[in-house]
Amino acid sequence: MTLTAPGSVQADSSAGGPIPPCPMRGLVCRNCGATSAPVAEHACAECFGPLEVDYDPELLRAVTREQIEAGPQNIWRYAALLPVGQDPADRVTLDPGLTPLVRADRLAAELGMTGGLWVKDDSANPTHSFKDRVVSMAATAARGLGYRRIAAASTGNLANSVAAHAARAGLPSLVFIPSDLEPGKVVQSAVYGQTLVTVDGSYDDVNRLTSELAETDEFEDTAFVNQNVRPYYAEGSKTMGYEIAEQLGWRIPAQVVIPMASGSLLTKVDKAFRELVAAGIVEDTGWRVFGAQSAGCDPIATAFDNGWDVVRPVKPTGIAKSLNIGNPADGPYALDAVRRTGGAVGRVGDDEIVQGIRDLARTTGVFAETAGGVTTAVLRRLVEDGRLDPSRETVILNTGEGLKTLDPLLPTVTPTHRVSPSLSSARQAGLVG
Amino acid sequence: MTLTAPGSVQADSSAGGPIPPCPMRGLVCRNCGATSAPVAEHACAECFGPLEVDYDPELLRAVTREQIEAGPQNIWRYAALLPVGQDPADRVTLDPGLTPLVRADRLAAELGMTGGLWVKDDSANPTHSFKDRVVSMAATAARGLGYRRIAAASTGNLANSVAAHAARAGLPSLVFIPSDLEPGKVVQSAVYGQTLVTVDGSYDDVNRLTSELAETDEFEDTAFVNQNVRPYYAEGSKTMGYEIAEQLGWRIPAQVVIPMASGSLLTKVDKAFRELVAAGIVEDTGWRVFGAQSAGCDPIATAFDNGWDVVRPVKPTGIAKSLNIGNPADGPYALDAVRRTGGAVGRVGDDEIVQGIRDLARTTGVFAETAGGVTTAVLRRLVEDGRLDPSRETVILNTGEGLKTLDPLLPTVTPTHRVSPSLSSARQAGLVG
Repeated sequence: MTLTAPGSVQADSSAGGPIPPCPMRGLVCRNCGATSAPVAEHACAECFGPLEVDYDPELLRAVTREQIEAGPQNIWRYAALLPVGQDPADRVTLDPGLTPLVRADRLAAELGMTGGLWVKDDSANPTHSFKDRVVSMAATAARGLGYRRIAAASTGNLANSVAAHAARAGLPSLVFIPSDLEPGKVVQSAVYGQTLVTVDGSYDDVNRLTSELAETDEFEDTAFVNQNVRPYYAEGSKTMGYEIAEQLGWRIPAQVVIPMASGSLLTKVDKAFRELVAAGIVEDTGWRVFGAQSAGCDPIATAFDNGWDVVRPVKPTGIAKSLNIGNPADGPYALDAVRRTGGAVGRVGDDEIVQGIRDLARTTGVFAETAGGVTTAVLRRLVEDGRLDPSRETVILNTGEGLKTLDPLLPTVTPTHRVSPSLSSARQAGLVG
Repeated sequence: MTLTAPGSVQADSSAGGPIPPCPMRGLVCRNCGATSAPVAEHACAECFGPLEVDYDPELLRAVTREQIEAGPQNIWRYAALLPVGQDPADRVTLDPGLTPLVRADRLAAELGMTGGLWVKDDSANPTHSFKDRVVSMAATAARGLGYRRIAAASTGNLANSVAAHAARAGLPSLVFIPSDLEPGKVVQSAVYGQTLVTVDGSYDDVNRLTSELAETDEFEDTAFVNQNVRPYYAEGSKTMGYEIAEQLGWRIPAQVVIPMASGSLLTKVDKAFRELVAAGIVEDTGWRVFGAQSAGCDPIATAFDNGWDVVRPVKPTGIAKSLNIGNPADGPYALDAVRRTGGAVGRVGDDEIVQGIRDLARTTGVFAETAGGVTTAVLRRLVEDGRLDPSRETVILNTGEGLKTLDPLLPTVTPTHRVSPSLSSARQAGLVG
């Protein structure tokens, strides 16, 4: 099974507008450079290195601002820069993206930042995390490759997005989650009426089981979104970078702070900026990418601090569960991007994460999940340590929704007053003089 | 304190684009027709009837599609049809709106609907309910009228939106909630770092207390968003109607199903359609508005069934808490709109509401709060009863986010399988043959 022939131009869709050529010409190994057809593999047949999408550089360079601006108000406006979904009829999607870029003047003032500060808020996506971007790619690729089901192992955001995409498309899905998840996360994954399997074990156990299932005959028709179609899946994260540049008026910010789990998102935002520069869509004004991890799961931060090229796995702890990948697949590539651009990697503890959530909410009205608290708290650290320049324009990424991670806030995020329903009680509480 | 002089044209803002004239010329009583200046009152000085915004019909009629389409990707693209916020510098807002209009083909097929079915999904707003539309109006009016604080009594969505708007603007707010609310709703209201007062009593007790507080000297500088600035607040709901028409390609759907609490939203969607027709922006192809209530709080449905002009108050029960207004202020006006357009009002019980949430999620990927479950379940009833024409284009409104009302789903929305982390266990569960 392979996807659309490279560079082929398709007929106009009934959905309107010309369909751009698909810029993908296949897959390429990030280690050895071996190329292959656009199939459902994530590891190189030669060296077992990670595969990524191989684009025709001429087709990427041919993309224009005008072409993008004429597109829909979602990630598909960038279809000419993506591996799949050029024809609207091919898409399996909730149409995520073009989420708000929120000016954070009050947070900037508190941190003494004078160059402009923005929050890219992906809690506005349909299932309220950036995962909708990557699942739209994976699900579209899966159907294009002839798969009849999509599946994932997940602890939350990914489960939600896969099940919702499947529901809208009428495509069966299977989501595997640890059985000790919070009831809320189970409900969010179950409500779409798709197959939801709880596994009595850790997230690592769940992952191992899905790897084993993927090898069985019964799962031959099933695309695991972040396993066998991972090269396509990962490209969805580029759209965060494209949107930031476009929403700034086709300009790349000097500094971007990005939460890291596998490290993939950071590498793809950097890649998006490089593609826009290569296409002549934005000026190359230089940029630095900064990584944010929690102290409970900081393998990339540790490698950065020690000058290592490899990332040593850790056993994750702490409240930022959506970032808790102890053995990050894209860690070395994220380190490369941080070092090449002159950025840094910061880490913060659980108390700082909660404070980061509160700081962001209090100053911008954006209610982030724990990962957004990590990013906000790391921003503060980087400014205080002098590693991030407060006089230059900065964007931080909020990748998810506060409503999904309420538990760590319950002890400290509490009402300011409690009264009886009478004026005298309100007076005693100091609400009236 | 009054707002901008009627019809005044202001200078260009630095935010770009010409600033349209303000179409508001004052307030008008919906009962006796007495007019007044645009002040902070919601009851007529002559007859105590409800006040609403009085527009200059010539200015409304002068608005064009092109003018709207050139505006921002949020409610402010309709600024020329709204009472406040023509100048971007005046706005106190999270920039809500232009939420997805989702094609619901799979739900339509299940219900035997052949004319096209859409879900207008306001869970995509910044604080994930339609309240962001009305709070943006109220907060902007409040600041324009010279108020220094905004406030509200609420059980959830409104509390969230008021606190978030205040946080972004750096404007103090006070939100009053019953102290027995679910912890999650308390956290969502507290995280923005604004004043949050829990009141030991029912929602009615909370309302009574805020009415008393509003009369004190200390609260002279405080705008209660759905009390003293209610006329401006309520106009925000018109933007739902404008967006539906624009997103359908400047066409009004034949049928719209709208959840009813106070009944205000339904009247404003109908009003929006009438304004668009009057302005020549859309053709008058006729439309019918349908109201949706829960059986636990159905005073407007009861009045409709009995042919009453007045709405008799009830004591609300049931899971659709965001719709639980037993004495709906706009009930008579909602009845008028339903009867004038040839619509109907339906009601559904709690089990049907949960089923409605599940049906919508399963077929569209949209996870609605209980109010959206009411609307979906009422749609089914109206089709089954032959009161809604399945051959005509229909839009249903989802006004809020499923993550906010998880509790009613916990007993029944559960995983489909539970396994140990082994192939043999997966085999026993029927996942592999």
